[in-house]
Amino acid sequence: MPIHDITLTITPSLPVWPGDPPVNLPQPARMDRGDVYNLTRIDISAHTGTHLDAPAHFIAGGAGVETLDLNVLIGPSLVVDTGDADALTADVLASLPIPAGTQRVLFKTRSSELWNRSEDVFVEDFVAVTGDGAQWLVDRGVRLVGVDYLSVAPFDDPVPCHRILLAAGVIPVEGLDLRVIAPGEYQLICLPIKIGGSDGAPCRAVLIG
Amino acid sequence: MPIHDITLTITPSLPVWPGDPPVNLPQPARMDRGDVYNLTRIDISAHTGTHLDAPAHFIAGGAGVETLDLNVLIGPSLVVDTGDADALTADVLASLPIPAGTQRVLFKTRSSELWNRSEDVFVEDFVAVTGDGAQWLVDRGVRLVGVDYLSVAPFDDPVPCHRILLAAGVIPVEGLDLRVIAPGEYQLICLPIKIGGSDGAPCRAVLIG
Repeated sequence: MPIHDITLTITPSLPVWPGDPPVNLPQPARMDRGDVYNLTRIDISAHTGTHLDAPAHFIAGGAGVETLDLNVLIGPSLVVDTGDADALTADVLASLPIPAGTQRVLFKTRSSELWNRSEDVFVEDFVAVTGDGAQWLVDRGVRLVGVDYLSVAPFDDPVPCHRILLAAGVIPVEGLDLRVIAPGEYQLICLPIKIGGSDGAPCRAVLIG
Repeated sequence: MPIHDITLTITPSLPVWPGDPPVNLPQPARMDRGDVYNLTRIDISAHTGTHLDAPAHFIAGGAGVETLDLNVLIGPSLVVDTGDADALTADVLASLPIPAGTQRVLFKTRSSELWNRSEDVFVEDFVAVTGDGAQWLVDRGVRLVGVDYLSVAPFDDPVPCHRILLAAGVIPVEGLDLRVIAPGEYQLICLPIKIGGSDGAPCRAVLIG
């Protein structure tokens, strides 16, 4: 079965959250300067590109990214097209085809198209999950929720959605590249690097199917 | 089926290659200092902890880590115990139970025990693949080779093994934690973060089975 890479490529031109550290990829060793090998240093925010949040991101003393359950990060998932919705409220979510028992849901929103822009500018009016939308997902038993821009929560109101999801042990995966993915069922593999105690980490995310 | 995490946790106390950038995980935003969220910055060598090499590591103009084939990074793999061997030469490899057609092989060597040490000191006499061992793997059609310390190649002779593997398109995965893994067949999932043009990247590696 085909493997679809739904991960953004991290380069210095990738937009980052306003105020976050920029993407910095210096090369302390370079063959074109006489070194035996090339060596890149990776200097980025833990919330760069396609990444996920750990409870520690919005919960004081919360668990770090290395503790996230691999049995949640790997398994069946549903890609849902949210059409022209501007916000994923409880009402909007209730109107979408999300069967009972869905554990992993990835929202393909109008924000996916932002990755077609050539400008490396952060956009504030991306589609996100509201506080009541987050509670709807928790109440339905969802364990992982993916979005196609850089935060699961609205730009101007990040706290309620993040706190509700993270307190319930739901894993938010952010910055997915779903542009060419058709809605439907896939096997998700979403693996963050294992940074001890971190509030998040870049991950590689793929869909199989 | 159980998912075995074979990834080292990246912390400032993890040994790194001599001369490489150290692990630096500052926190530009901290809730205990009044910020709305916690935010970690990840500042590490691309070859930290459990990671893989791209052709660009030892081949001038070679491909970056974002181009590595997901169909190689995911699939059946064989964990082989190399006993008390000090080097993985062609002769040693020929004596091991590696069936023809093996595409992914992970070597559990005596170096696995180094991860039980409490000291965060780099060890130079780890078990590695020699140049003729690398050629043996290429000739057998192996496409991914994993080792349990921080380089696939011997400390004092890194070039031949790396060049032979990388020129042949074989993916070296380094710094695997195989301490509790029994030899045998598993499904490997080894996903590096997608750093554009990088000569390597940290990855999350798991075995299923």
